[in-house]
Amino acid sequence: MQQFSFVQRYDAYKQAVETALTALIPNPLPHTLYEPMRYTLLSGGKRVRPVLAMLACDAVGGNGMDALYAGIAVEILHNFTLIHDDIMDAAPVRRNRATVHVKWNESAAILSGDGMIAIAYQTLLRSPDLTRLRELIEAMNIGIIEVCEGQALDLEFQDCSTIDLPQYFRMIDKKTAKMLELAVKVGGIVGNGSGTQIEALCEYARTAGIAFQVQDDWLDIAADASKLGKTIGGDILEGKKTYLIIKALEQRDSLPPQDRALLDEFLSKRGLSAEHIPAMQCLFEQNGVFASARAEVEKLTREAHNALDVLPDNAGRTLLHEFATMLLERTH
Amino acid sequence: MQQFSFVQRYDAYKQAVETALTALIPNPLPHTLYEPMRYTLLSGGKRVRPVLAMLACDAVGGNGMDALYAGIAVEILHNFTLIHDDIMDAAPVRRNRATVHVKWNESAAILSGDGMIAIAYQTLLRSPDLTRLRELIEAMNIGIIEVCEGQALDLEFQDCSTIDLPQYFRMIDKKTAKMLELAVKVGGIVGNGSGTQIEALCEYARTAGIAFQVQDDWLDIAADASKLGKTIGGDILEGKKTYLIIKALEQRDSLPPQDRALLDEFLSKRGLSAEHIPAMQCLFEQNGVFASARAEVEKLTREAHNALDVLPDNAGRTLLHEFATMLLERTH
Repeated sequence: MQQFSFVQRYDAYKQAVETALTALIPNPLPHTLYEPMRYTLLSGGKRVRPVLAMLACDAVGGNGMDALYAGIAVEILHNFTLIHDDIMDAAPVRRNRATVHVKWNESAAILSGDGMIAIAYQTLLRSPDLTRLRELIEAMNIGIIEVCEGQALDLEFQDCSTIDLPQYFRMIDKKTAKMLELAVKVGGIVGNGSGTQIEALCEYARTAGIAFQVQDDWLDIAADASKLGKTIGGDILEGKKTYLIIKALEQRDSLPPQDRALLDEFLSKRGLSAEHIPAMQCLFEQNGVFASARAEVEKLTREAHNALDVLPDNAGRTLLHEFATMLLERTH
Repeated sequence: MQQFSFVQRYDAYKQAVETALTALIPNPLPHTLYEPMRYTLLSGGKRVRPVLAMLACDAVGGNGMDALYAGIAVEILHNFTLIHDDIMDAAPVRRNRATVHVKWNESAAILSGDGMIAIAYQTLLRSPDLTRLRELIEAMNIGIIEVCEGQALDLEFQDCSTIDLPQYFRMIDKKTAKMLELAVKVGGIVGNGSGTQIEALCEYARTAGIAFQVQDDWLDIAADASKLGKTIGGDILEGKKTYLIIKALEQRDSLPPQDRALLDEFLSKRGLSAEHIPAMQCLFEQNGVFASARAEVEKLTREAHNALDVLPDNAGRTLLHEFATMLLERTH
């Protein structure tokens, strides 16, 4: 692999993903099945998962481009989860556009998501070397099962006021981190990595994935609104049990009465109205919740970096290292 | 393979399927994900697809039991389609019990169906010999894609008054026949059948599957209500475009005015109320629609039987032959 900068390599891989995805989903009939797929898959996005798969393939000494289709398979799975999650969350907007169940209808959203699962497996089969096909398929299966478990836990948590941090991390591990783990795993398998190498890649993706989510929770209320591109405090409005809320609830009994009342209102009303956001920001700031979140993200990112140590010292590894740093440093 | 009677072999295979399925889906957490799966998969049913897979394996000279898990994989896929189709059709009851989205909620139904797709692939991997894994995976992928296309076409047809028989058969081929085709295909691959043999098995399942659906359309309005276990004429009440309706519409212009009016009312109101069922039965009877349906089922069953000719003359082939006859002769 040539010594590209991180940005150059990311852009080159991302471009390969866009080109392949466009060719992959033509415009066949029935339209009600395939139009929502094209709408979802060809709407841009950062393509984090396929790029991670390709970098992981590089990192174990393979040729990143060999993991293109395995990575795209994971991207397709990720997009299937978005379509189905948006139905369950009754979300009207995603990436500044109407969600599939709103633009078409719920049946089209269910069906196109279902079809995308099969298309993901079919895309995986385009990989240039299928010697380790059984491992690849098993990784895909387990990835999907875990992401379904994560979403089920997330839904169960919405009805439960006593979620603690271990439960939160378990849910996030399944719901968010597992698809990143799947990405590096298929990349590592395609690159013919050893068991130890693939385990290291998974640990890297798991910790970086959880860091990503905690960062997301933090940015949702701490970011500059103009950069975030959406309302500040959306999670608070929706009553989501984020890292910040759970961390604040841990200290509930030692908080001043007005802060306790604010948290109790959040729980009983399953969210707060917009005028309470500044008070909640204040609560988080004054009680070290923001600081805990930042410390957690930094700790997890260090763990992600450390996990890479067992891999050969090559450009792929360096780029994975930079990738985790980039996630840590993002401001929106 | 020993010379069992069809019924003995069917029962033995069905029993093996039940035992394996019970062990396959334990009772893990989260309950909202796995309870609906257990509810659906362990609710009995005829287990047509896994038994077909096992008989197909026998028919190409393999050992039927080797196709147990491949067959169960198809059974799981079939059940996933039922759960998701029931959401789309807003069906409250299936197999005399509340559907998953009614008993739990829609999110649980979407998620458990999604998870079942991955569990199906995972179950396939339990097959004793995975030499032809790539073919097995590809068959599963295409089976799911086609069944999604079939359901999308079915939904599109509900909004369209001018469906002709070729369109109907294309939809049924995807929606109903493809899962039977998938069953014999995976059975044939696990039994290490040749390309010609597997093609013959698919042709057999395709024609038998379409015969099965036309028979279903016919039984819905022609069967003895006490045997059918549901209301006679349910398809007419729901406004479904069955073989019978499409066949009657073909002759619309040459029908007497009151029959024409009945068909037009069916189309414009998307279904008829119960008091119109006898008139519709009369229309079908007097204009040869029932006779056409019977003739079509018999023709397709003959084609299914003929497709088996290229297979070796063994007990597996004989049992597949009897299987198609059984489908033809069922009265409910």
